[in-house]
Amino acid sequence: MRIVVLAGGIGGARFLRGLQRASPEADITVIGNTGDDIHLFGLKVCPDLDTVMYTLGGGINEEQGWGRTDETFHLKEELAAYGAGPEWFGLGDRDFATHIVRTQMLSAGYPLSAVTEALCDRWKPGVRLIPMSDDRVETHVAVTLPDSGERRVIHFQEYWVRLRASVAAEAVVPVGAEQAKPAPGVLEAIAEADVILFPPSNPVVSVGTILAVPGIREAIADAGVPVVGLSPIVGDAPVRGMADKVLAAVGVESTAAAVAEHYGSGLLDGWLVDTVDASAVERVEAAGIRCRAVPLMMSDLDAAARMAQEALTLAEEVRGA
Amino acid sequence: MRIVVLAGGIGGARFLRGLQRASPEADITVIGNTGDDIHLFGLKVCPDLDTVMYTLGGGINEEQGWGRTDETFHLKEELAAYGAGPEWFGLGDRDFATHIVRTQMLSAGYPLSAVTEALCDRWKPGVRLIPMSDDRVETHVAVTLPDSGERRVIHFQEYWVRLRASVAAEAVVPVGAEQAKPAPGVLEAIAEADVILFPPSNPVVSVGTILAVPGIREAIADAGVPVVGLSPIVGDAPVRGMADKVLAAVGVESTAAAVAEHYGSGLLDGWLVDTVDASAVERVEAAGIRCRAVPLMMSDLDAAARMAQEALTLAEEVRGA
Repeated sequence: MRIVVLAGGIGGARFLRGLQRASPEADITVIGNTGDDIHLFGLKVCPDLDTVMYTLGGGINEEQGWGRTDETFHLKEELAAYGAGPEWFGLGDRDFATHIVRTQMLSAGYPLSAVTEALCDRWKPGVRLIPMSDDRVETHVAVTLPDSGERRVIHFQEYWVRLRASVAAEAVVPVGAEQAKPAPGVLEAIAEADVILFPPSNPVVSVGTILAVPGIREAIADAGVPVVGLSPIVGDAPVRGMADKVLAAVGVESTAAAVAEHYGSGLLDGWLVDTVDASAVERVEAAGIRCRAVPLMMSDLDAAARMAQEALTLAEEVRGA
Repeated sequence: MRIVVLAGGIGGARFLRGLQRASPEADITVIGNTGDDIHLFGLKVCPDLDTVMYTLGGGINEEQGWGRTDETFHLKEELAAYGAGPEWFGLGDRDFATHIVRTQMLSAGYPLSAVTEALCDRWKPGVRLIPMSDDRVETHVAVTLPDSGERRVIHFQEYWVRLRASVAAEAVVPVGAEQAKPAPGVLEAIAEADVILFPPSNPVVSVGTILAVPGIREAIADAGVPVVGLSPIVGDAPVRGMADKVLAAVGVESTAAAVAEHYGSGLLDGWLVDTVDASAVERVEAAGIRCRAVPLMMSDLDAAARMAQEALTLAEEVRGA
């Protein structure tokens, strides 16, 4: 079975680990979000790609969900001593190596997709990980700074990591997305997929950014195979992260049903909501999307595997319908 | 008193620390060798500049004489795990920060001299450290590889660090030196100097490379102030490093007297040899260079300070003559 998964960072990566457990024989292609990529200290940092790669490759810091295990931060301390910022982005000594190798390969002319493949040669994540695009796309967020009242457009990471989404996101713009082309292999993987899954990743700045690359949304809608998603919202709040902040920016209420409607029946065939949101099933189905209420808390690998199995089961239901 | 010092790495740096002790009120400008600079992992590494900066700024690993104190090597381990070479150059996690900041500033368009000044803003070495040139100069060494018999021209660091100078250097070429211009401030510092010193640095690949930048040798010869050097060779062997290997490549025997003659009386007014080489004094003076035999083993800071004081004393003798 060929499965395509559109993944952001931590939620996507943990779901993927569950999917590998639930369907060990599946041929999985991950289309990774690169909208939260950022250039820091002259290096190209791809947080979501790395979170997927480290998580599936056994190098992730399990507790925080991002960055490397057994990590030190000496380089970062020294950068701060030089007054070289920003200090709010937590790059560890081991993690830096990934960004250095990536940047060196990009400088040598390799596209990000080829670089990602080379990095995965080491990590062996057990999936094919492709960035959504080899072109630069950077999600920016319009905010009003609370102290100065100044309206500014800032990089998503500055909004998410530095400000901890503490102010309202007035707009979320994937800068460069309109001009971006899907990376080699993305459309082919979608066209050849038996199932397409949206993990409980952020519907705006993770899955939404991938869908903003022209051609990807259309390819998924036209693939003619079940497309099933899992709600990142449980009981009207994000399972993790601050998805509600960016949902508000695109005028979507922070509920499991509203996110399904946001994707829409033109894209989504099936949707899983948590059991606490069972009352949403009717509304989602009324929107033309088959819906089931199952436990959606990814508390451990077993829970993630059960969620992945529920998604695959719903996909088979959709296919048989 | 304004003192200009032409410095390589470890020997130059330790001598400078002695000079600061011997002459705390002096205004010291260091013209640093950049011929052993190397690009590694997309980063610009300046080993000699950094050794001077770290040594005078209190950040040096005292035992090995280069690199940072309290250092870790996690980033390097990870690069090796990615198969990204070379592995023979020992970059530590803290040290990497210097190269990252430097590379970022160079990429932003700052010349190396301005970058070095910015890095020194943190380290406060107590001297003005200027690279010999803002232009790229890289010392290359012609060797015959012992296993294959192949003749190759390799970067100085590969010769020095990877091969440990274990094969004969057939030629030493400061690639780019002929086209290089002295960095801003170099010729001015020489013109305004009261004394010019050559520490016991390598006469070929450290001081020799600095002198290979057109204009610097001439400026020193024309400065009209005492130029005094200290022999890096004691008892026919280098005090540290493998200076004999590269002296052979330029046809200079590995003795204190031969090195003085190599610099020549057109450049050098005074020369210090070690007490074990007292018999060389006559030969050096016959070459028109005033010479004294004093202890030249820089075993600690006091010894380095005494050597610096001897050099300044000899300079005053030259001036009074």
